[in-house]
Amino acid sequence: MNTSKIELLETYLSLYIGHDVVLKALQENDEKYVVVDVRNAPAFVKKDKIKGSIEIPAKDLAQQLATLDKSKTYVVYDWTAGTTLGKVALLQLLSAGFEAYELASALEGWKGMNLPIEEI
Amino acid sequence: MNTSKIELLETYLSLYIGHDVVLKALQENDEKYVVVDVRNAPAFVKKDKIKGSIEIPAKDLAQQLATLDKSKTYVVYDWTAGTTLGKVALLQLLSAGFEAYELASALEGWKGMNLPIEEI
Amino acid sequence: MNTSKIELLETYLSLYIGHDVVLKALQENDEKYVVVDVRNAPAFVKKDKIKGSIEIPAKDLAQQLATLDKSKTYVVYDWTAGTTLGKVALLQLLSAGFEAYELASALEGWKGMNLPIEEI
Repeated sequence: MNTSKIELLETYLSLYIGHDVVLKALQENDEKYVVVDVRNAPAFVKKDKIKGSIEIPAKDLAQQLATLDKSKTYVVYDWTAGTTLGKVALLQLLSAGFEAYELASALEGWKGMNLPIEEI
Repeated sequence: MNTSKIELLETYLSLYIGHDVVLKALQENDEKYVVVDVRNAPAFVKKDKIKGSIEIPAKDLAQQLATLDKSKTYVVYDWTAGTTLGKVALLQLLSAGFEAYELASALEGWKGMNLPIEEI
Repeated sequence: MNTSKIELLETYLSLYIGHDVVLKALQENDEKYVVVDVRNAPAFVKKDKIKGSIEIPAKDLAQQLATLDKSKTYVVYDWTAGTTLGKVALLQLLSAGFEAYELASALEGWKGMNLPIEEI
């Protein structure tokens, strides 16, 4: 019975990338990773974002897929880790053939660890 | 390998309904949707709830299934999107043959967007 | 179509154990359950933890598996229910043949219900 639990956990966790990988790429200016803020809220609500991340609201992602680069690895994030918006964006990216992950712990976790952010 | 990721995301996301659908139904008095607060906490802890939602604590849902209406679409919510209570309720509803979804982002997200609530 | 939803919900929910089971074990000094705080943060960030829980940061779990007891049931928890760290730890425990669960609602939910904690 644990087989199905283990399979679910393995697939579920394979959707995510850790903040350590993203932080290292940011610190080393590694351009392989593109961090994407997919929150749909307007700028005055969002206020700040992960340093170096680009903003593509999930609601606009479908129209912007053609502008993305298949040689990059996309890392999407939403407000918190429990919401579905990151997974909505991730599904679009994976279905379009991009390498993509959701940031584990999302913006909430990134800020909770006092990692670099920037104002919007 | 992305196939299993995509399948998991598709099935996972199919469990949820967006706040926009629920808000529109509320604003238009569309009686197709019944929003259900499944929090188990007592009223003085809950304090308020999504406007127009009914309260059926997850712990009482099994006994109340017979009073529900198969022509409706049920939308359950818990405090936050990351908890399991909404999914416990959702599993009961789906297993009993109801059309049902969990509200994406839960009460926390609904309040975060300043959508209509009412006191309990 | 609901079959795959129901299967996903059943497997997903089988990863979790409720706070009521853990609380009862704590109150009755039932030594079957071992509650494990898997947060990676240092003590001054964690500040407190679930009463009676032991601390094994997820990053150290692999090296400590050999010290664990196959006759116990392990219950892991992270800060919130939406993060992935608990599932990372859970996957290691299940893959190593332990009986293990993630605490539903995590530390956030436990504290929200004013259940017993202790300082670190």
